[in-house]
Amino acid sequence: GKIAFLPGDGVGREVAGAARKVLVAAAQKYGVSLEFNECVFGGAAIDECGDPLPEQTKTVCLEADAVLLGAVGGPKWDGATIRPEQGLLGLRSALDVYANLRPIQVAKGMEGFSPLKKEIATDVDLLIVRELTGGLYFGKREEGMDTARDECLYTRAEVTRVARIAFEAARKRDGRVTSVDKANVLATSRLWRNAVNELHEKDYADVKLDHMLVDAMSMKLIQAPSSFDVVLTENLFGDILSDEASVLSGSIGLAPSASLGDGRRGLYEPIHGSAPDIAGQGKANPVGMLLSAAMMMRFSLDQAEIASCIENAISRALAAGRGTGDIGGKDSCMSLTDYICETL
Amino acid sequence: GKIAFLPGDGVGREVAGAARKVLVAAAQKYGVSLEFNECVFGGAAIDECGDPLPEQTKTVCLEADAVLLGAVGGPKWDGATIRPEQGLLGLRSALDVYANLRPIQVAKGMEGFSPLKKEIATDVDLLIVRELTGGLYFGKREEGMDTARDECLYTRAEVTRVARIAFEAARKRDGRVTSVDKANVLATSRLWRNAVNELHEKDYADVKLDHMLVDAMSMKLIQAPSSFDVVLTENLFGDILSDEASVLSGSIGLAPSASLGDGRRGLYEPIHGSAPDIAGQGKANPVGMLLSAAMMMRFSLDQAEIASCIENAISRALAAGRGTGDIGGKDSCMSLTDYICETL
Ligand SMILES: CC(C)[C@H](C(=O)O)[C@@H](O)C(=O)O
Ligand SMILES: CC(C)[C@H](C(=O)O)[C@@H](O)C(=O)O
Repeated sequence: GKIAFLPGDGVGREVAGAARKVLVAAAQKYGVSLEFNECVFGGAAIDECGDPLPEQTKTVCLEADAVLLGAVGGPKWDGATIRPEQGLLGLRSALDVYANLRPIQVAKGMEGFSPLKKEIATDVDLLIVRELTGGLYFGKREEGMDTARDECLYTRAEVTRVARIAFEAARKRDGRVTSVDKANVLATSRLWRNAVNELHEKDYADVKLDHMLVDAMSMKLIQAPSSFDVVLTENLFGDILSDEASVLSGSIGLAPSASLGDGRRGLYEPIHGSAPDIAGQGKANPVGMLLSAAMMMRFSLDQAEIASCIENAISRALAAGRGTGDIGGKDSCMSLTDYICETL
Repeated sequence: GKIAFLPGDGVGREVAGAARKVLVAAAQKYGVSLEFNECVFGGAAIDECGDPLPEQTKTVCLEADAVLLGAVGGPKWDGATIRPEQGLLGLRSALDVYANLRPIQVAKGMEGFSPLKKEIATDVDLLIVRELTGGLYFGKREEGMDTARDECLYTRAEVTRVARIAFEAARKRDGRVTSVDKANVLATSRLWRNAVNELHEKDYADVKLDHMLVDAMSMKLIQAPSSFDVVLTENLFGDILSDEASVLSGSIGLAPSASLGDGRRGLYEPIHGSAPDIAGQGKANPVGMLLSAAMMMRFSLDQAEIASCIENAISRALAAGRGTGDIGGKDSCMSLTDYICETL
């Protein structure tokens, strides 16, 4: 398996290093060979060559079976004319990974980490499917001194293809999709709802579908998180709702993501950012990144066994009380990673 | 005081009726005269004359000291070419109430209603200031069969005027403003941040200002809600974040709002919607509406004493264990309202 390896910025570098270590150990155990091609990306790439997504990095990513990414960004590039985030958006777009899968689970016995009352945090197991290559993120912009404009554009085909991924995922889970929009105000949301309904009737009538407005969803996610199975939504709503949902488990540092397109190739990154406040201190939680690496083994490298092996080792570590500070543990990123490697 | 009274649709009618009752009782107690001009609005107005904001209603609102509004919308008008919500947006725009104030408090002893752990829900007292007449809500739209487009537009002047309201509010509270945007992606957010910073430096350097990305804010609101004082944000982010924040107190039915412009005239509505699922059953929680009515007395009718009298009666009722089903109580909308009237 050829892996484009993009540590990026801030804690991205630490957690990506952790993932590489665990992947190497797991691959060795199973006699599988992995090739890591490390590339410069994000703020680090701006510093090196003025471009957050250098041509060379893009080429390596397009030729790989999967891209494993840490995180990008930081205050250092806040005022810059070109931002690390542009590299990330450019990469998502270049890879055409239009469906971002963000599973959120509160494992049995882990409810204590959640800011929610135990009875509400129990049995949370949802999957957010976020459209990743359209909407406000990729519309035309106008940026003047006194007026600014962003455009949100969706085509029916863009909605249908990501909705299909959500329905397929639901069939393998509890068979329910909640599609989130703001159809009482936005034209793009009405198209969204319409396209989702159409596909549902045509190909997925066996899946239970309902629609929820984004404002109502931001409440329900906290009031009744265990009531959801698959949550399907557009790019910006997905950004907000998946970060919100990540608190359910106690820390955004625990949450992985996989971004997929039509082929098998995918982009894998934790949902947390570069966390400049704790970068370089060994405090970063590697779990979200490690779970992303496991998703990569499963979805892009066809190594479901290795994926499960990594996931189980993580579960055992957490169940044994190991963990970084964000979930009240005493481990460093490194010590937790080493423990997981040893117990694979 | 001249009040344009717009019950609207669904539970809006029930809670607006409750507010009228309490206002009449309180005004009588203080020897103040209130004039209620009831107008048809929203879905009800579509049914009556095909327009959610009839000219007559608009005129009455523009001539009033304040507009008291229940809620609009419902599945009945979901497929309609004209929607109840258009009336609401039209009214906000006609009144030019660009600043929507949404206070969220968890009163001492009421932490049990919150889905959050007690220690996290304690001491929550924040004010969301949401821009209400710009952004995606009022941009150009294109709505075709296969493509849809919404535009998000902000001018510097629009940002500055609402930011001023937030800074002024902060000075009367804990002196801190958190401005929320998505400046790492959106042009409008960069203009937002820039205009807020500029006004801060020029006129409000005494207020502590920080900026947060909307995705991070959706987490922090749940992880550390007591850390915020005033939260300033644009229209759609404010819609999502204020609904999210309303859960902190246990029920969206408890949350009031005031929408203000440059003059004293304001629009007052609870932040909950028309709740078609429970409409007409007497189950609606009147508290958010009653607190909105109290805000009206304070901000638009210059009757701070009456406002406090209503607020205190509500607090006493809740402290005495009275309340509707959404907060685990046994009251109907009516019985709770009567109790509050009696104990004013
Ligand atoms: C860094 C930023 C552009 C990105 C996004 O908004 O998509 C991040 O928040 C995420 O969720 O992956
Ligand atoms: C009904 C709807 C248009 C409205 C909005 O989105 O502004 C509502 O959700 C609110 O928050 O007042």
